[in-house]
Amino acid sequence: MGKKAIVLLSGGIDSSTTLAIARDQGFELYAMSFRYGQKNSYEVEAAQKIAEQIEVNEHLILDINLSPIGGSALTTDMPVPKNRSEKKREKIIPVTYVPARNTIFLSFGLAWAESIEAFDIFIGVNSIDYSGYPDCRPEFIKAFEQMANLATKAGVEGRPFRIQTPLINMTKAQIIQRGTELGVDYSLTQSCYDPAPDGKACGKCDSCILRKKGFEEAGIPDPTVYSN
Amino acid sequence: MGKKAIVLLSGGIDSSTTLAIARDQGFELYAMSFRYGQKNSYEVEAAQKIAEQIEVNEHLILDINLSPIGGSALTTDMPVPKNRSEKKREKIIPVTYVPARNTIFLSFGLAWAESIEAFDIFIGVNSIDYSGYPDCRPEFIKAFEQMANLATKAGVEGRPFRIQTPLINMTKAQIIQRGTELGVDYSLTQSCYDPAPDGKACGKCDSCILRKKGFEEAGIPDPTVYSN
Repeated sequence: MGKKAIVLLSGGIDSSTTLAIARDQGFELYAMSFRYGQKNSYEVEAAQKIAEQIEVNEHLILDINLSPIGGSALTTDMPVPKNRSEKKREKIIPVTYVPARNTIFLSFGLAWAESIEAFDIFIGVNSIDYSGYPDCRPEFIKAFEQMANLATKAGVEGRPFRIQTPLINMTKAQIIQRGTELGVDYSLTQSCYDPAPDGKACGKCDSCILRKKGFEEAGIPDPTVYSN
Repeated sequence: MGKKAIVLLSGGIDSSTTLAIARDQGFELYAMSFRYGQKNSYEVEAAQKIAEQIEVNEHLILDINLSPIGGSALTTDMPVPKNRSEKKREKIIPVTYVPARNTIFLSFGLAWAESIEAFDIFIGVNSIDYSGYPDCRPEFIKAFEQMANLATKAGVEGRPFRIQTPLINMTKAQIIQRGTELGVDYSLTQSCYDPAPDGKACGKCDSCILRKKGFEEAGIPDPTVYSN
């Protein structure tokens, strides 16, 4: 029996590739997804399909509605910005930022990890082709790991947790190339912040723009169905 | 208008006293409670009564069921230990420990804080008369605060969050004395890990033992109704 790993799985390119990388490293996979009140309810369906394709041991989906907390275009009526220029994407943390989202997700990942005695928690954060969110940066991840090992019974008893971020320094194109090598079926994944009611991607939000650019630069056909 | 504070409120002695202390310090109060799958469903009712007594601005109750995660006697069928000796209570982290619970609660507190622009997050942790949980210790709180200021937009923009722990070095008796001075009605609070179906406290779990001892040492009559 291999070592267990928790993998946070949103159903997008990055987390799906992270799941495949963890499998390639020989881990038993415990995937974790959240219904957190996001506009894109297709995300969790995509996560289920990917969890099935990659053959995880267990896929836990938790309901934690963040809408009452507010503060983000992803969880409230606030509109999702479209067609932001690269310059803007580099400089301004957009309203699609969800306060403390990765902190919350990693905290649940930590709880499940401790409960099932998994000591590796994978998260597909990336600080190259990303939306500028502070909780995707290496310094945040390092601080979370330190905190986690003071927060938990296992941590204080000398069985530390590791937060694994295999994509942290990869471009979106490199991520797509690596995932393709590992057999990830990207047609199952969902990246759009604001899909149409039929599930088609908008093609204009930051997440769609980065996704399109990634496939182009990787020289791999984009299987996504866009609204326009 | 005063400064806003988030106060994590479980409905026990410590969080209720913390709420009164934050009010005494002049904060506008935003209390936050969780239905996390705890056996003691009276907790949240107690939190509502206290939030009303202390007159908070808003009381947000979130549903985040931790039962599927497992690992604790508070969220699963595992029995709650009774009549543990002081020696045992000092040495062994009990099965009532909920993996990463305070990390999860503080993460939601951080999210709400950022959303409403509150920069003080109060939590009633105490490392004197407590159950030995690692996530009640000052070193954990400090590490969480550091992480929080790397995780958030406000943190990286130079508007840091503070995790406030006014009870950290107080005995249970001192906490009860301070809360009594501040007018906390402890008859509304609930501490028991495993109350009877009618809501009466068991009187034998760690939490009841510490509560009883606290009232005795404070020389204040204990208003709690125990089963036996």
